[in-house]
Amino acid sequence: SVAVVFLSATRTLWLLMLVSLSVCICVCRASSPQEEDSAMENIVTEKKAEESHRQDSADLLIFILLLTLTILTIWLFKHRRFRFLHETGLAMIYGLLVGVVLRYGIHVPRDVSNVNLNCHVNASPATLLVDVRGKFYEYTLKRVISANEVDDLQDNEMLRKVTFDPEVFFNILLPPIIFHAGYSLKRRHFFRNMGSILAYAFLGTVISCFIIGLLMYGCVMLMKQVGQLGGDFFFTDCLFFGAIVSATDPVTVLAIFNELQVDADLYALLFGESVLNDAVAVVLSSSIVAYQPEGDNSHTFEVMAMLKSFGIFLGVFSGSFALGVATGIVTFTKLRDFQLLETALFFLMSWSTFLLAEACGFTGVVAVLFCGITQAHYTFNNLSPESQDRTKQLFELLNFLAENFIFSYMGLTLFTFQNHVFNPMFIVGAFLAVFLGRAANIYPLSLLLNLGRRNKIRSNFQHMMMFAGLRGAMTFALSIRDTATYARQMMFSTTLLVVFFTVWICGGGTTQMLSCQHIRYFCLLSNLFLVGVDSDQDNSVKGSERRSTKQESAWLFRIWYNFDHNYLKPILTHSGPPPHSHTNECQLKDDDSDLILTDGDINLTYGDITVSTDATGAHTSGGPAFAGATSSEDLDRELTYGDHELVMRGTRLVLPMDDSEPPFTDPHNRLRM
Amino acid sequence: SVAVVFLSATRTLWLLMLVSLSVCICVCRASSPQEEDSAMENIVTEKKAEESHRQDSADLLIFILLLTLTILTIWLFKHRRFRFLHETGLAMIYGLLVGVVLRYGIHVPRDVSNVNLNCHVNASPATLLVDVRGKFYEYTLKRVISANEVDDLQDNEMLRKVTFDPEVFFNILLPPIIFHAGYSLKRRHFFRNMGSILAYAFLGTVISCFIIGLLMYGCVMLMKQVGQLGGDFFFTDCLFFGAIVSATDPVTVLAIFNELQVDADLYALLFGESVLNDAVAVVLSSSIVAYQPEGDNSHTFEVMAMLKSFGIFLGVFSGSFALGVATGIVTFTKLRDFQLLETALFFLMSWSTFLLAEACGFTGVVAVLFCGITQAHYTFNNLSPESQDRTKQLFELLNFLAENFIFSYMGLTLFTFQNHVFNPMFIVGAFLAVFLGRAANIYPLSLLLNLGRRNKIRSNFQHMMMFAGLRGAMTFALSIRDTATYARQMMFSTTLLVVFFTVWICGGGTTQMLSCQHIRYFCLLSNLFLVGVDSDQDNSVKGSERRSTKQESAWLFRIWYNFDHNYLKPILTHSGPPPHSHTNECQLKDDDSDLILTDGDINLTYGDITVSTDATGAHTSGGPAFAGATSSEDLDRELTYGDHELVMRGTRLVLPMDDSEPPFTDPHNRLRM
Repeated sequence: SVAVVFLSATRTLWLLMLVSLSVCICVCRASSPQEEDSAMENIVTEKKAEESHRQDSADLLIFILLLTLTILTIWLFKHRRFRFLHETGLAMIYGLLVGVVLRYGIHVPRDVSNVNLNCHVNASPATLLVDVRGKFYEYTLKRVISANEVDDLQDNEMLRKVTFDPEVFFNILLPPIIFHAGYSLKRRHFFRNMGSILAYAFLGTVISCFIIGLLMYGCVMLMKQVGQLGGDFFFTDCLFFGAIVSATDPVTVLAIFNELQVDADLYALLFGESVLNDAVAVVLSSSIVAYQPEGDNSHTFEVMAMLKSFGIFLGVFSGSFALGVATGIVTFTKLRDFQLLETALFFLMSWSTFLLAEACGFTGVVAVLFCGITQAHYTFNNLSPESQDRTKQLFELLNFLAENFIFSYMGLTLFTFQNHVFNPMFIVGAFLAVFLGRAANIYPLSLLLNLGRRNKIRSNFQHMMMFAGLRGAMTFALSIRDTATYARQMMFSTTLLVVFFTVWICGGGTTQMLSCQHIRYFCLLSNLFLVGVDSDQDNSVKGSERRSTKQESAWLFRIWYNFDHNYLKPILTHSGPPPHSHTNECQLKDDDSDLILTDGDINLTYGDITVSTDATGAHTSGGPAFAGATSSEDLDRELTYGDHELVMRGTRLVLPMDDSEPPFTDPHNRLRM
Repeated sequence: SVAVVFLSATRTLWLLMLVSLSVCICVCRASSPQEEDSAMENIVTEKKAEESHRQDSADLLIFILLLTLTILTIWLFKHRRFRFLHETGLAMIYGLLVGVVLRYGIHVPRDVSNVNLNCHVNASPATLLVDVRGKFYEYTLKRVISANEVDDLQDNEMLRKVTFDPEVFFNILLPPIIFHAGYSLKRRHFFRNMGSILAYAFLGTVISCFIIGLLMYGCVMLMKQVGQLGGDFFFTDCLFFGAIVSATDPVTVLAIFNELQVDADLYALLFGESVLNDAVAVVLSSSIVAYQPEGDNSHTFEVMAMLKSFGIFLGVFSGSFALGVATGIVTFTKLRDFQLLETALFFLMSWSTFLLAEACGFTGVVAVLFCGITQAHYTFNNLSPESQDRTKQLFELLNFLAENFIFSYMGLTLFTFQNHVFNPMFIVGAFLAVFLGRAANIYPLSLLLNLGRRNKIRSNFQHMMMFAGLRGAMTFALSIRDTATYARQMMFSTTLLVVFFTVWICGGGTTQMLSCQHIRYFCLLSNLFLVGVDSDQDNSVKGSERRSTKQESAWLFRIWYNFDHNYLKPILTHSGPPPHSHTNECQLKDDDSDLILTDGDINLTYGDITVSTDATGAHTSGGPAFAGATSSEDLDRELTYGDHELVMRGTRLVLPMDDSEPPFTDPHNRLRM
C-alpha cells in the first residue's frame, strides 16, 4: 500500500545518502596528496588554497548530509508516530555514528609540510608576516596550544578538519535559536505566570549554579585526596560548571509538550523558565569568568572581585536587555506594501541587535532574546500578514537547521574532540549535583511561590518541571567555548554526557512521565493535522472560572498592562489608540491569538476581577472584588476542585477526539510538527 | 496627509540609522587600545580575542546598517515611484559614501604588536606553530604578499578590517543569487527561445571574451610602447579580463523589465542569456587560468595547453551541469505533510549540490544554477503548496540580501581597497572593448539566428540587448578573487568602473531606452499592486497566432518535450503518467503557470502545429501542417503583421489600465517588487 511505497522510497533515499556520505569521505581522503615537484611557489600556494577549499567543502558536506539524514528519519518517525526519540536526540545519534567512523575508520596523517618550524620569538601578534626568500606570507593567529597538545596536533588531520571554531556556535548558530524562542513565546500565559517564571529563571538558576558549584567543589576536593585529579581545578571553575549546566533547554521536551497539548500553564512555566534561564546562565558564566583573573592565580575569595562580578552581571544583563528591547521597539516598519523589503528589514534589525550588543561588550544572545520578545509584542502587529508568515517561517527554518546542526555536532564531538578528560568520579558527582541543583531550584521555589499564587503549582507539575530540565544547545556552546585548561576539558566531556543523558532519557521519557504524573494531555493520535490545536484558546475559554493569578503579581501585571495598552501599543503599533483597537479585535483574534493581549482576553483571564474599558481608554478595576478574592474559602474551593480534577484526569489520559474542536488551528504549531 | 507622516517617519529612521552608524564607527575607533601591562599571556590573548571579536561585530554592523539604509531608501523610491535608480545602484552609492568616510574620515594606525618578526624560513606551510616561551601559537596561512605591499599593510588597520576574504563572495553570497536566478527562470519562454539563448550564452560569451581579450592586448601593447605599463601583462591576462567582463548581470535591468512588463520573449532572451552567461564566464575564466601556468613564465601560445584548457572547460562545465541536474532530480521529496522538514530538506539539498561540486573540483555556482533549473522543473511540483511558497520566499530573501550586500560592498571597495591601479588608457580601452565585445556578441549572432528563427529578433530588440548588457555581481566576484599581481589589480579597478558605469547609466536609462526603441511595455503607474500581472499568460493567450518557433529548434524541443512529458515528469513528480496529469491540469495551471509546461500551453504555443495527446500518452503531431508552416507567405504575413504592430506600439507607449485584467497575479512577481 502507500506506506510500503513510502518506506521503500525512504530506503532508497537512505541508501543514496549513505553512498554519497562515503563518496564524500573518499573525497576527503583522496584530496591530501600535494605535488612539491614544481619549484614555483605561487602555483603551490594556489594549489594548496584550492585543496584546502575542497577539503572544507567536503567537510561541510558531511554535516549537510548528516542533517539531511536526520530530516528523513524524523519524517519517518513522524510518519510512524514514534515519539520516544526527538529529532535532536536523533541528530546526536547520527553525529555519534559519523564521529565513530571519522575517529576509527579514517586516518589521514598530517602531511609534513603543514607542521611547524618553531622560530623562538618574544610576542604572539594577531598577524604574523613570514619572509620566505623575498615573499611574505601573512598568517593569522588561530589559537594557543599548550606544550602537551602539540603532539596531538600531528595525530589526525581529519579530526582537526571537522572541528569548528567554538565561536561559530555563539555567533552564528545560537542567535537564531534564541531569537526564535523569544519570538514564539506564548505571551498570554507567559505574562500571567511572569512572577513565577522570573523567580525560577533568576533566583532558581543562581541557586542551582551555587549548589552545583559547591557540590562539585566537594567532589573535586575528594578527588584531590584520592589522587584522581590531574590538574588545577579552582572553586571558580566549579561555579562556572554550575552556571553552564544550569541552562535548561527549551527545545526537546517542549516540542513533545506542544504535540501532546499539555496544560498551558505548565508549558508557559517550563518554556519561560528555560528561555530566560539561558540568558541568565550565559551572563552568569561570563561574570564568573570575569571574577577569575582578579587575584593572580590565587583564586581565593575576594569581596571586591565578587562585587565586581555582580556588577558585571547586572550591567551586562540590563545592557543587553535594554538594547534588545530598544531595537525591538525601533523596528516599527511602515513598509507594509513591500513584503520582501519588510521581511529583509526585520531580519536585518534582529541581526544588528546581536551585533550591536556584541560590539558594545554586552551579550548578543541575551539582547536577541529580548529583541525577539519585544518584536513579537509590538513589531509583529505592524507587519503585513504576509510578512508575519514569512518572518515566522524564516526563523522557524533557521532555528530548525541551527538546532539540529548543534545537536549532531554534539554527537560528533564525543569522538572527534581530541582532548577529552573522562573522570568517572567527576562524572558521577556531576550527575548527582545536576540532579540536586535542579531539585534545589524547583521544589523550594515552588513552595515559596505557592504561598503567594492562587493558581498553585501542584506537586505533579513540580515533578514534571524537575524531570524536564534538559540540558542542550546553550550548555554545549558555553562548555565548548573554552577548552584550554584541564578543568575546562573535564567539564566539557562531562557536560556532553549530561546533555546526552538528559536528551535521550528525560526527553524520550516525557510521554511516560506525563502519564505517570497524571498530567492531562490531548493525544491526537488519529489525526496528525489536528496536533496544532491552540490549547491556549481552548483552556482560557473552558477554564475561565478557575483562572486567577496571585494578587500582587496581578497588580503589578495590571499596572504594566495598562501602561502598555494605553501608551506603548498605540504609539508602537498601527492598531491606534484603545477605542480603535476594539474594532480590530475580531480580526486580530483569529490571526495571532497567542500573541496579542486584547481586552476580551484579559476579562476572561481575571475571572472574578472585572476590568472594563471605557470609551476614553482608561481602565477602572473592580477594587472590592479584587480585595475579596483572597478569602480562604475561594482557596479551599479551588484546591478541592483541583484535586477532583486531578482524579478525573487520571481516568481519561487519552481524551477522545470530540473533546477538541479544531477551529483554532494555530499556524505556528501546525508548522512546528 | 499619509505621505507626509510616512516621510517624517522615514526621516526619523534615517536619522537614527546615521546616528547608530556613527556610534558604530566610534566603537570601531574606540576599541583599539590594548593593555600590555599584565604579564599574564593568557589574559592578554583572551582580551585580544575579545577585542577582535568586538571589532568584527562592529564591522559587520556597518554592513548591516548599510543594507538597512538601502532598504529604507528603496522603500521610499518605490513609494514615490522613482525608477531611475535601481536598488543595486543605490546600494553602491551608499557603499561609496561609507567607503569615503572610512578612507578619509578615520585613520586607525596599525598597532605595533601586530606587525612582523620576519624569521627566515624555507617553506610556507598552511599551518604554522610559533613557540613563544613554551607556549605554542597556531597560525594559519592567510595570503601571500609581495615585497612592495608590506609597507601598505601598516598603513590603515581600519581599511583592512572591512575587507572580506574574496572567497566569501564565491562560497556564500553568489550561490543564493545564482540559484534564485535558476529557480525563477520563466520556463515556458526560456524553452521556446532555448536555441537563441544557448547561442548568445555560449558562442556569444566566447566571442565577446576573445574580442575583448584581443582588443585589450592591443591596448596593453600600445601602453607598453608609451611607457604607461607598470608591470607584466600577458595575453592570458587579457583573455581573463575578457572572460570576467563578459558575464552580464541578470539583476538590474530585468527587475525594471519585470516592473514594466516588457515583451516576454525579450525578457526570456535577456534573462536566459545573462544567467547562462555567468556560468560560461566562470568556467571560461578558470580554464584560462588553468592555461596560464603551463609554460614556465613563457606565456607563449601552446596548442597542448590550449587543448587542455578547452578540455578543462568542457569537463568542468559538463561535470557541474550533470551534478546540478542529478541533485535537482534526486530531491524528489515525499514529505508533503511536514512543510518545515520539506523546506529544510530542499534547502539542504540545494546547498549540498554546491558543496559536492566544489569538493569534486567542479564549479559550485554552475552546478547550483542547473540544480535550480531542474528543481523548478521537477521538484517544485512535488512540494506542498505551502513549501512552494516557503522555498520561493526563502530564496528570494537570500537573493535580495546577498545581492544588495555585494553591490554595497562594491561601492565600499572603490575607496577601501588599498591596491587600486587606475590607468586612464587601460580604462578607456576597456570601456571601448566591452562595448565592441558586446556588439560582436549580439549583432552577428542575431543576424545568424534570424536566418533560422521565424519569430525574428527585431533590431530594436537587438539594440535593447546590446544596451542591457550590465556587468554585476559575477564580474565583481571574479575580479576580486585574485588581486595579487599588477595586472589583476588593474583589472579589478577597471572592472569596478565598468560595473559602476553600466549599473548607473545603462540600468538607470532602461526606461528611456525602452521608449526610445519603441518597445511596448505596460506601465502600471496607477496601481502598484498590479505590477505583477503575469505577462506570460497574457501574451500567450492574446498573441497565440503569431507565436511559432523556428522549425529545427521546435523539432528538437518537441523531442525533448515528449521525452520529458512522457517519461521524466511522470517518474519524477507526483503528477503521475500523462492520463492523470490531465486531471491535475486546472489545479496546476493557476498555481504556477509560469513553471509548468502542460498540454494546453503547448497547443497554444505551437499555434499552427497541432500537438494532441491521446489516452496512452503518446503524442502525434500534425506532420503536414508542420511542413507547410515554412511557406514564405506565412513569413511575409508575420513580418508585415509585426511591422504594423510596431507602429501601433509606438503610439501607445503607456497602455491604459483596462488593457490588463489582473486575475493572474503571479505571486512571485508580486513579491519581487
